[in-house]
Amino acid sequence: MHRRTVFFVSDSTGVTAETLGRSLLTQFDTANFNQVTLPFVDTIDKADEAVATINRTAADEGERPIIFSTMVRDDIREHLLPVEGLFLDFFQTFISPLEAELGVRSSHASGKAHGLTNEAQYDERIEATNFALSNDDGAQIRDYNKADVILLGVSRSGKTPTCLYLALSYGVYAANFPLSEDELESGKLPKVLEPYRSKLYGLTIEPARLQQIRKERRSTGRYSTIQQVNYEIRAAEQLFKRCRIDFLDTTHSSIEEIASSILASTGIERRIRP
Amino acid sequence: MHRRTVFFVSDSTGVTAETLGRSLLTQFDTANFNQVTLPFVDTIDKADEAVATINRTAADEGERPIIFSTMVRDDIREHLLPVEGLFLDFFQTFISPLEAELGVRSSHASGKAHGLTNEAQYDERIEATNFALSNDDGAQIRDYNKADVILLGVSRSGKTPTCLYLALSYGVYAANFPLSEDELESGKLPKVLEPYRSKLYGLTIEPARLQQIRKERRSTGRYSTIQQVNYEIRAAEQLFKRCRIDFLDTTHSSIEEIASSILASTGIERRIRP
Repeated sequence: MHRRTVFFVSDSTGVTAETLGRSLLTQFDTANFNQVTLPFVDTIDKADEAVATINRTAADEGERPIIFSTMVRDDIREHLLPVEGLFLDFFQTFISPLEAELGVRSSHASGKAHGLTNEAQYDERIEATNFALSNDDGAQIRDYNKADVILLGVSRSGKTPTCLYLALSYGVYAANFPLSEDELESGKLPKVLEPYRSKLYGLTIEPARLQQIRKERRSTGRYSTIQQVNYEIRAAEQLFKRCRIDFLDTTHSSIEEIASSILASTGIERRIRP
Repeated sequence: MHRRTVFFVSDSTGVTAETLGRSLLTQFDTANFNQVTLPFVDTIDKADEAVATINRTAADEGERPIIFSTMVRDDIREHLLPVEGLFLDFFQTFISPLEAELGVRSSHASGKAHGLTNEAQYDERIEATNFALSNDDGAQIRDYNKADVILLGVSRSGKTPTCLYLALSYGVYAANFPLSEDELESGKLPKVLEPYRSKLYGLTIEPARLQQIRKERRSTGRYSTIQQVNYEIRAAEQLFKRCRIDFLDTTHSSIEEIASSILASTGIERRIRP
């Protein structure tokens, strides 16, 4: 298979076109794709420019590009159609069956498509992000009554990025608390967490992978020896089991998958909806 | 239009199905949709369970649900087909034209679809997130040589969430530096930023919106008066213009849009690709 250029074309940020296009490309050998995003194509002039760019690529490479598009306005999308390549538009494909099913016409309103521009949603995400930042790594506990979830785990098990992702993507209030030598040795939860047992959720990870992550941070010392890592993870998992805290192995998961799994298994409601 | 229930069904996290479905739903009156995600439907038994859940909803509500699905495996997807409702599967629709265009068969590998599970990508995002956290709000400047971009703006203009989003979504190293009274009065950049002029990017916001955001944080005092907010924003924009720093008005943008606009206008390369 020859190398192809893939274009993500959108009248807005291009985030939706990228997310959808990439999930399709992962079904093929992705090493063969050169990826280019053309965002904010929201006028006929810009559509014509995009066509020129894509056709130039087709001519230069001697291979038809693949174009994933999310164009809401029919008149602008039509100007993309003379493009040299495989043109797949996500809205065009699904809007018609939806209109038929719902018995109404869609608004065809550009920019609105991504549904995240309203102020209330912005505010929710910012508040949740501020919450994650000020409740990171056990920094404070006085706001735990406001938390939707409190993640527990050993150092570098993925707590902080997961909390930030839950905040930015779902508006969920996520705090995190590191398991220290005290907890690991005693096998007991710290007293400050007792009132919040129903909000606790554990993260664990395979020892070899944790060692690798820790070594990138600090290459020498006990912190990143396999003995220490083995001990901490075994003690953390025993603590989770003894205290009946649900937990998840993050080793083979992306941050999105960890976040989705936590929502699915705890039933926490997302605050962000279109 | 009657209220409908919308299901996002996936063999993985459901993030792609939600992205697709929600961007389509914003073209209709979204107040009329009740949204339910059914993630990790990766066995035939789970598919049958999902069908039972959806059909129960259809019977209870007397309205056909709408199902957005991202099922990679044909055999599991087939078990969803007896569902009562409008069934739109993303992979089924687009994989065939892609296979024809590329002249190869797709892998049909479940879980792989979202393409973010590999360790190198996880590490990139974690490193970028750690960078954003330790370079937030001008906390340190010694790592600015590693930054892809350094955001400038007045307090609450959106710097921190934008940096975190750039890190988590794109693996981009983004620092941020608050414009203080010193810079706003003198109209000059602080000396520490001089060596990094090419990396600077400004955020601005309409005064009324900034005042609203600041009032949620601190309801009294000069910080959230319209006079102070007007002064700071005018001074910041003058500074950006005088120093020829590109800047963006974030008032009507989501965090995704701010991040995409910065990437589009600076040409910074994303570190994360499927």
